[in-house]
Amino acid sequence: MNIKIKWLRDQLRTQDLQGMIVSNPTNIKYLTGIEAEGILLITLKENLFITDSRYVEAVNTILTIEDEILVNDKKNISREDYASFFMFCENVGFEENYVTYADYKEYLQTFRVNLMETENIIEGQRVIKEQREIELIEAACELTDKCFEYLKTFIKIGMSEKEIAFEIEKYYKTHGAEDVAFEPIVASGHNSSMPHAVPGTRKIKDGDIILIDMGCKLKGYCSDMTRVMFVNYIEDEYKEAYNICLRNNELAEAEIRDGKNMKVIAQNSNNHLKNNGYVPMHSLGHGVGMDIHEEPFFGIVYDQQLKENMIITVEPGAYSIGKFGIRIEDTILVTRSGCRILTKTSKEPVIIRCR
Amino acid sequence: MNIKIKWLRDQLRTQDLQGMIVSNPTNIKYLTGIEAEGILLITLKENLFITDSRYVEAVNTILTIEDEILVNDKKNISREDYASFFMFCENVGFEENYVTYADYKEYLQTFRVNLMETENIIEGQRVIKEQREIELIEAACELTDKCFEYLKTFIKIGMSEKEIAFEIEKYYKTHGAEDVAFEPIVASGHNSSMPHAVPGTRKIKDGDIILIDMGCKLKGYCSDMTRVMFVNYIEDEYKEAYNICLRNNELAEAEIRDGKNMKVIAQNSNNHLKNNGYVPMHSLGHGVGMDIHEEPFFGIVYDQQLKENMIITVEPGAYSIGKFGIRIEDTILVTRSGCRILTKTSKEPVIIRCR
Repeated sequence: MNIKIKWLRDQLRTQDLQGMIVSNPTNIKYLTGIEAEGILLITLKENLFITDSRYVEAVNTILTIEDEILVNDKKNISREDYASFFMFCENVGFEENYVTYADYKEYLQTFRVNLMETENIIEGQRVIKEQREIELIEAACELTDKCFEYLKTFIKIGMSEKEIAFEIEKYYKTHGAEDVAFEPIVASGHNSSMPHAVPGTRKIKDGDIILIDMGCKLKGYCSDMTRVMFVNYIEDEYKEAYNICLRNNELAEAEIRDGKNMKVIAQNSNNHLKNNGYVPMHSLGHGVGMDIHEEPFFGIVYDQQLKENMIITVEPGAYSIGKFGIRIEDTILVTRSGCRILTKTSKEPVIIRCR
Repeated sequence: MNIKIKWLRDQLRTQDLQGMIVSNPTNIKYLTGIEAEGILLITLKENLFITDSRYVEAVNTILTIEDEILVNDKKNISREDYASFFMFCENVGFEENYVTYADYKEYLQTFRVNLMETENIIEGQRVIKEQREIELIEAACELTDKCFEYLKTFIKIGMSEKEIAFEIEKYYKTHGAEDVAFEPIVASGHNSSMPHAVPGTRKIKDGDIILIDMGCKLKGYCSDMTRVMFVNYIEDEYKEAYNICLRNNELAEAEIRDGKNMKVIAQNSNNHLKNNGYVPMHSLGHGVGMDIHEEPFFGIVYDQQLKENMIITVEPGAYSIGKFGIRIEDTILVTRSGCRILTKTSKEPVIIRCR
């Protein structure tokens, strides 16, 4: 049987669950490779993907006999079939963080079974990356490094944030990525003080800060990196903030290794910002994988330990509200003795010379 | 007060709801213009958007005093504040089709109030488009027509489906759209038989069918259109299917006007396909607006009436499984006496001459 589903079945057993309804499409893709609307049922006797006629043909072309997954067109499934899928199951898991309240009620009616919350069981499985997954994320990070290198020569005074954001997207898509991992943030001048600024029509000027937060999705896996550029020169105020932010990023990364408590690292990072006069505006980082934001979340409210082969971001920011902001972000791999930084773009301040 | 929130408040009153928690970001944007993570609380005494520190600055720049919306950073809100928001409210609505089961449980704990399902009350409000919205969707459709015209000269033998899909995206983004409304479908040859094919590496050949389903998002509103091209010539089998599909599209559009039953129109369309030897593979259409798929859904399971100023798609398809497929789709505006087709690209079979 498909090895990931086998692992999931073992987990379900330890939680006294005899089956599970998997609804989150990213989880379905992780377990089976299937990219289609539908639900995956892990029952006592089989693994069953229920989809509709639009997808049956496409799904069957990607599955092999070793997957042991039956594909069913929902229009061929009767009410009695649904009610029989979890026969002899006492407790069946569902994804309470993905399934809507309305769907939960429908599942209850359709499957006539005792539904139990599974507390992100599959997301938990996805946290520790396999070698193949690490290589894919490394490749996505490498493409992001190359894109940043390209931007250093592309950006000119008078260009709008939007134009730069589109160029990032174009670069990714013409260099093998299937998509951006998220809409790139290109925030210039005072816009950089908004951590989630949307690229707008503001044009790049002499002396500007340009904060660029970007990542791509390559073969299903994401990268995430933030760097800041300065146009022709760096104002003293910016330089001071930059150095504090960089120091914060480096201190946090130096603390990372298998077994360390993430909450403590995030607290230390926040304290360092506060001691230097900045108010922490967001958490220190997040997991990266098939989703751009996934477990583990990395902040002062999440009390958990780092583990080998987690992939996370480290992204402290120093913001001066309404004036400017600096953020320096890497995607990193947690190792037994430390971490490996997968985004390799230099973190020295970048001054682009342009007119 | 903001006129849309005023309308919503009137609706809530008729349903014996004294407040509502709005969680769906498209609904929040529809009501307020706000594009940020957070929830909108409609309480007895105020309208309150609760977000986090990353968004406070950006949100405050787009709201005016007339909106009468207070913006709050959630870190300044205590547990007691949350519990007091819906004081004196007996029933408070929530969006059961958007809110997850886990969030539902959290809302119960946080707001300590009786939560009632609102059955897509705001989606229902969005179904009837205002004049301004119609104009925006018209503009998105016009750009889609122009893009298709451009593709007729762009596509060449040997190009991959992926290359064409990327060109569509590039065209949209360099001609004013903020994004594609959905990942374009470019399905050539036998791939066209899969209604939701993902553009792949298959290269265009002489005699191919190329099915293109595309739309853009322009100033927040979507367009949706499908047309089929033939490379250099049309095989007889394709032509027959094309004519049946086109006839089906025209028959359905001719039935559309304010007051008609959508289920009956969808049944007539399905019967016409079946009488001509085709199995209907999907519903006849769907609403289009801020979301690419929104209410009203248009198929044999939805028993509802067309109303003036709805905007919907009409998209019958004739598929020969594993061999080829034809789909012809318009975005249309329902009027009192009929409909206005907003996607104006000719529906005669397009033969592109290329090597």
